[in-house]
Amino acid sequence: MPQSRIVYLNGEFLPLAEARIPIMDRGFLFADGIYEVSAVLDGRLVDNEAHLARLDRSLGEIDIRNPHTTKEWIGLQTDLIARNGLEEGLVYMQVTRGVAERDFAYPSADTTPTVMMFTQGKRIAANPLAETGAKVVTVPDLRWKRRDIKSVALLAQVLAKQQAAAAGVAEAWMVEDGAVTEGSSSTAFIVTASGVLVTRPLSTALLPGITRKAVLRLAEEADLTIEERLFSVEEACAATEAFYTSASAFVMPVVALDGKVIGDGSPGPLTRRLRAHYLALARGEG
Amino acid sequence: MPQSRIVYLNGEFLPLAEARIPIMDRGFLFADGIYEVSAVLDGRLVDNEAHLARLDRSLGEIDIRNPHTTKEWIGLQTDLIARNGLEEGLVYMQVTRGVAERDFAYPSADTTPTVMMFTQGKRIAANPLAETGAKVVTVPDLRWKRRDIKSVALLAQVLAKQQAAAAGVAEAWMVEDGAVTEGSSSTAFIVTASGVLVTRPLSTALLPGITRKAVLRLAEEADLTIEERLFSVEEACAATEAFYTSASAFVMPVVALDGKVIGDGSPGPLTRRLRAHYLALARGEG
Repeated sequence: MPQSRIVYLNGEFLPLAEARIPIMDRGFLFADGIYEVSAVLDGRLVDNEAHLARLDRSLGEIDIRNPHTTKEWIGLQTDLIARNGLEEGLVYMQVTRGVAERDFAYPSADTTPTVMMFTQGKRIAANPLAETGAKVVTVPDLRWKRRDIKSVALLAQVLAKQQAAAAGVAEAWMVEDGAVTEGSSSTAFIVTASGVLVTRPLSTALLPGITRKAVLRLAEEADLTIEERLFSVEEACAATEAFYTSASAFVMPVVALDGKVIGDGSPGPLTRRLRAHYLALARGEG
Repeated sequence: MPQSRIVYLNGEFLPLAEARIPIMDRGFLFADGIYEVSAVLDGRLVDNEAHLARLDRSLGEIDIRNPHTTKEWIGLQTDLIARNGLEEGLVYMQVTRGVAERDFAYPSADTTPTVMMFTQGKRIAANPLAETGAKVVTVPDLRWKRRDIKSVALLAQVLAKQQAAAAGVAEAWMVEDGAVTEGSSSTAFIVTASGVLVTRPLSTALLPGITRKAVLRLAEEADLTIEERLFSVEEACAATEAFYTSASAFVMPVVALDGKVIGDGSPGPLTRRLRAHYLALARGEG
């Protein structure tokens, strides 16, 4: 972990090694906080205002005051990217309800939210995994019921991703009542034999994916047939193509599910096209 | 918040004001940690070895190595109680998977878990609320599916307790499919018109309450009929008595549920007896 990396904490830019929070921070005691991740490509933020809008919505859902305007957030992000000379990777943002004596109910309304941000360098455009395609395993969906809130209560996702890591694959798709709900940190899509793009409709039961939304718009522009509905594990195994989307994976082809080959075992043509379109969009060429 | 209070963090006893954790602690980023709370009465720990056993079990369920033996934990707790001159209140313990670059899957196996402990002074034996009885509201149970693991992913419980606070009552009982699952930080019990003590059986869907277990043993010794099964909100409203148990509430009478009076609106005789028995047990007179 590069300890000299400059991070942001409560109004200050400082080296990671010095960035510490009080043990009574409600993010640490209760997972009482929200986060967002925006991609950075060629030094520029990708679809960032949508991420900031979702951050604002998530905070509102759990009654945390958004400590910054969109303009302020963008200023902080841009500053952090510049200080770290980040060309490609992620900007992570976290807001918690702040520091107070431990008690489940909200502390007094004048408690100052904790704001923390850091960058991670990462190859997201020229990601070698996008060439070969990712393998995925299914795991039970253990999460809470308000999956539309992007909170830091992520233990279920940690356990899911660890099952993927233990199986030597990149992602886990979570399953509930036989249906694929979401990836552990992504949105799941399949393409059926008849060429229909299928992904789950928005509700409180899944995160409103920012990349999901952009990809659905691109698919519409390309005149693809889209069905927003749940799909089963069996249907996914029988799909011609599959992929997942997220701020850090963009559009990631899935070539195997629980060891069963999807399509011909290489990234499908439609998936490749959507990834290329999304990359162009992300680069401002869309 | 008394900043001079002495807390424990990773091998050191230090004032609360100086106790800080790195922002990359997985407890802060992912709620990737476990906690326990033991009561202190007359300067002595109550049913503490059962709490430490549950801490060990919870850690094992998410593959975090327990950093201390039972003897070491007791040594640290005793030291902390003495340093703070704590006569009555709680000792809080938290263990997280430690500090590592942000990535959902587990970090390398040699990552050192974070260990944090603090005390809270609190009147738990002579709690005035136990005299009048607590009012309770019901809220939807939003929690994840592994409720037997005492993790710090507590946002659902925070929201539940806040609904109780907003309603001006002490506790929220969580409801799923019409049945009372648990209190937001306690185990729920009712006594039926025919004098049967009812509480939910243990499973992965609820926390194995330490006080619950002790109270069931006391009820057995008192020859009460016990039924371990789910009960509905309607059944709870029609109950002769109701109460909840936890390390900090001991046995807390419930006198109203969603504004409906339970029994005659005062703590029931059986509840009072169980509370008195539990207090005697906690004081070592049991």
